[in-house]
Amino acid sequence: MAGSDLVELAKRRGFFFGSNGAYGGTAGFYTFGPRGAALKRNLEDAWRDRFTLKEGNQEIEAPTVMPEPVFEASGHLEGFDDMLVECGECGVSHRADHLVEDATDIEDAEALPGSEVETLIRDHDIACPACGTPLAGREVEDFNLMFATNIGPGDSKPGYLRPETAQGIFVEFPRLKEYARGQLPFGVTQIGPAYRNEISPRGGLLRLREFTQAELEQFIDPEDDDPPLDRVADVEVRLYPADEQGTDGETYLEMPIGEAVAEGVVGSAWVGYYLGLANEWYERIGVDMDRFRFRQHLPGERAHYAADCWDAESEIDGDWIEIAGFAYRGDYDLSKHAEHADDTFTVFKRYDEPRTVERATVDPDMSVLGPEFGGRAGEVAAALERLVERDPDAFEADAVTLELDDGETVTVETDLANFSIEDTTETGEHVTPHVVEPSFGVGRTVQTLLAHAYAEDEVDGEDRTYLGLVPEIAPVDVAVFPLVSNADRLVELSERVADDLRDRGLAVSYDDSGSIGRRYRRQDEIGTPFCVTVDRDGIEGEGPDSVTVRERDGARQVRVPVDDLVEELDALLGGNDAAFEDLLERHDPVETDVETA
Amino acid sequence: MAGSDLVELAKRRGFFFGSNGAYGGTAGFYTFGPRGAALKRNLEDAWRDRFTLKEGNQEIEAPTVMPEPVFEASGHLEGFDDMLVECGECGVSHRADHLVEDATDIEDAEALPGSEVETLIRDHDIACPACGTPLAGREVEDFNLMFATNIGPGDSKPGYLRPETAQGIFVEFPRLKEYARGQLPFGVTQIGPAYRNEISPRGGLLRLREFTQAELEQFIDPEDDDPPLDRVADVEVRLYPADEQGTDGETYLEMPIGEAVAEGVVGSAWVGYYLGLANEWYERIGVDMDRFRFRQHLPGERAHYAADCWDAESEIDGDWIEIAGFAYRGDYDLSKHAEHADDTFTVFKRYDEPRTVERATVDPDMSVLGPEFGGRAGEVAAALERLVERDPDAFEADAVTLELDDGETVTVETDLANFSIEDTTETGEHVTPHVVEPSFGVGRTVQTLLAHAYAEDEVDGEDRTYLGLVPEIAPVDVAVFPLVSNADRLVELSERVADDLRDRGLAVSYDDSGSIGRRYRRQDEIGTPFCVTVDRDGIEGEGPDSVTVRERDGARQVRVPVDDLVEELDALLGGNDAAFEDLLERHDPVETDVETA
Repeated sequence: MAGSDLVELAKRRGFFFGSNGAYGGTAGFYTFGPRGAALKRNLEDAWRDRFTLKEGNQEIEAPTVMPEPVFEASGHLEGFDDMLVECGECGVSHRADHLVEDATDIEDAEALPGSEVETLIRDHDIACPACGTPLAGREVEDFNLMFATNIGPGDSKPGYLRPETAQGIFVEFPRLKEYARGQLPFGVTQIGPAYRNEISPRGGLLRLREFTQAELEQFIDPEDDDPPLDRVADVEVRLYPADEQGTDGETYLEMPIGEAVAEGVVGSAWVGYYLGLANEWYERIGVDMDRFRFRQHLPGERAHYAADCWDAESEIDGDWIEIAGFAYRGDYDLSKHAEHADDTFTVFKRYDEPRTVERATVDPDMSVLGPEFGGRAGEVAAALERLVERDPDAFEADAVTLELDDGETVTVETDLANFSIEDTTETGEHVTPHVVEPSFGVGRTVQTLLAHAYAEDEVDGEDRTYLGLVPEIAPVDVAVFPLVSNADRLVELSERVADDLRDRGLAVSYDDSGSIGRRYRRQDEIGTPFCVTVDRDGIEGEGPDSVTVRERDGARQVRVPVDDLVEELDALLGGNDAAFEDLLERHDPVETDVETA
Repeated sequence: MAGSDLVELAKRRGFFFGSNGAYGGTAGFYTFGPRGAALKRNLEDAWRDRFTLKEGNQEIEAPTVMPEPVFEASGHLEGFDDMLVECGECGVSHRADHLVEDATDIEDAEALPGSEVETLIRDHDIACPACGTPLAGREVEDFNLMFATNIGPGDSKPGYLRPETAQGIFVEFPRLKEYARGQLPFGVTQIGPAYRNEISPRGGLLRLREFTQAELEQFIDPEDDDPPLDRVADVEVRLYPADEQGTDGETYLEMPIGEAVAEGVVGSAWVGYYLGLANEWYERIGVDMDRFRFRQHLPGERAHYAADCWDAESEIDGDWIEIAGFAYRGDYDLSKHAEHADDTFTVFKRYDEPRTVERATVDPDMSVLGPEFGGRAGEVAAALERLVERDPDAFEADAVTLELDDGETVTVETDLANFSIEDTTETGEHVTPHVVEPSFGVGRTVQTLLAHAYAEDEVDGEDRTYLGLVPEIAPVDVAVFPLVSNADRLVELSERVADDLRDRGLAVSYDDSGSIGRRYRRQDEIGTPFCVTVDRDGIEGEGPDSVTVRERDGARQVRVPVDDLVEELDALLGGNDAAFEDLLERHDPVETDVETA
């Protein structure tokens, strides 16, 4: 399949298209049409079922606009940049690192300092792709990728569109831990828009300025909490570890995830657990697992605080694209917010039994410090308290030197501190949870499902295009067709059938225009698993009314009594054991040669 | 109930709370916690079921960031303003019209010109509510309520966070009509975030800077399309028409919506249809219909293009708040975009039979115009074409006067125009659809449901607070409790029961901490309809294992065999005919005196 065929089908059939076409289009923004929005929602529901409900996690919904201090803490204000170079002639901005990668053998120019990229632009005579003017001498700047705005009037409260949904979870950790009643481990999820103000976006749903993330933040006690790895230990995964990359060809390790963790191929058991869970889930929603792999980040790729990172990647048109990331983030996120915010980002971990620990204390003699230091005696006492926490050994000397708040230093005789070491009983300790983050790109997964479902074959002697989507994901469950639209009883029965199916909660498309063949083709192109046709044979013969049911992939048909229809279709769609073969055995098959003309 | 009790419960139980509390809070932004996000999602699903799926409408998902030209067309750039006055002393900004309303008898200061508001501020000695400094002499400015940002680097492409989801539908009309195969009427829906950069927001979920809308844009042919009013004609609605407002007391009209339309109380049949549909839906999701009304907009309230507007209002703590709006918007939206954008915002309406119409035409004699007007002859001919469309009667005179592009006027003899009236055959015409817009505020509906569900009573001699939410909306369907957490068989069975219920697609909460009474209380406070307790009696006696099922509102309990549990609960929750009374008849009731201590 050529990618352009799919893009054309996506637009024609209402999956997705570039936004604001009537206004010339807005690069980096896509609108999901009726079919795409339904498919995307089904995908999100499937994710929620697997990663929220079945795991017993909690889903929240936080705002998309967040105030500046949040991103000072998270590091996005400082570090969420791309390298920009603007053409001096035509004023168009470009990703400087991409220009260098296109013109040289360098694969990861993003890792280079800006000055070096400027040099490479000059040395390789790189010109503006828009107008051809040489870019030598133009400054390479850091461009922050967050969309900036102001909250309220004036510019005193800068805000940003969140670059990831995760921050909406992290900032509310003090509250979320209460909902989890202070017990680790617990997981919080969120599905929603995130934003990245790309310098020059391209590539359909793959690099958007506004996109949907489904993120899970798993909070764990790094010392005590292990994942339920045995639940997924036998899941076979295809791994592409860092040390296999960059060699000739692609060498994958295919093994059960339990083994991969045991052998240390996957460094974190928690990351391994989620790789196993995700592998099963991708298979369930219809990813072609022959076009799927988990790729480990190269050492230079991952953030300094991330111990182990893997991406889920799918193959589309020969390219491997990242559709999810799995990172062990340590205590980075919560520690940063604890530093910047005014709340508690720890969990109190109660010991099984109280522990006795030695604790160095001071009890400053104020009757001497008072006269000696006057109004500053309190400050001196506080400095003694700080010192004993930091460096109890200092009190072995005859005198200690203290720095007061204004930087002045004073010397105090050790005796006056009343230093002692006492046994104290502690019932627990405050722990900053570590974070394991599976983060899914919803739009990219939509694109993957469409690309992997896209198929062409021949039915009744004619070429056909269809999407082999699994029923859970397909935007329409069942299409209902009255064979002709001018026969009252036939139309009436068709409408009743459609209503009954809708009442069962199915997504139904009703179509009464064009030939039956053309109607089948429309449904094939949007991946509708079953089509029901109400024809004369079914209402004119002896016995109860019946309709034909046609399945998508094999285009086989069977005649089913109307009274059984809802149950039969519900069973087929619900993934119960009932399969179409079974239906064919229990009911009459229908032979037809459908005209699409 | 005092509103503060509900706000406290909402925060404590994870429904919603002010965002970014760890950073001092951000006014106008709320985060939905686990319970609130689940309830909100259930509400959105119920809306989708009613207004999208059951109506056969199409849902789309468009970006939240849109480029400036869209809002030039929609009028938001020019007119989406509030009146701002900034204190010269402390710099805090206020809604100038609100200050005037608080200080005077004026009820709708927003409708006054800014200069008049300035005068009122001076005449009434209005001071800054933050610091007390008089505001006399301070300028009252228009503050645009859209959040502004820039798309891509630099400021050449201003963008805004959409003030309503509707624009994402209107701008894509040229595409959406294709998906509807050019046939009116059709409806397009969208559920998603919208933004309004309030000057000084207050009031919990009622006035947020970021909120969720569920909007339906119904596109109709104003001449030919009637709504299926008979489907809802018998629905009794409580109407508060414009001419009853402002009188002493509140006089409502209570009547079937069909009658209200027939008598002209509701001016548009389409608006009436949606009022009927909405009334049924609000009742279904648990709005207390004694605390609900439809209020017609006063003439000054509605936009100039809106023919008839009604709000759905609910009563919370004695105040009536708007939770939805129903407007007949005419062709305003599509005409505006047709003017500003480069695409077709009409639908071609094919006549049943081709029509012959008289059409006035000109066929300018260029052999004379050329020599006479030289290089401007083309312009003259074009002006003749325009004139014949606008005013064919003008050609009855001997000469016509034309205005050229630069404003110059010329006179041309009528003979040279070769004016004639011809019969032409037309197969149809291009129609700009009218728009009927039901627009729902999701957060305000959440707040309404919680306020109307909030109840206090006494159970087993103790005070109790519970939320009487309908099962479709309640965040948790079933809670499962092992009576004790240290008995293996009991815990194992509890976990299996929870898993089985989850497999059926139910939202399950598993709770094994604290006394059973305390666990019931937690679930009561979040409105969980049913609690299942696994106790020793159920697994130690003769016969099959059983558990107790307790319903929320009456706190009645019944013992149910484990093998029947999923079916029974699914039936109770699914709104099937099975009711708890029926369950009590078929199974053993349980008498307990629950300790909450």
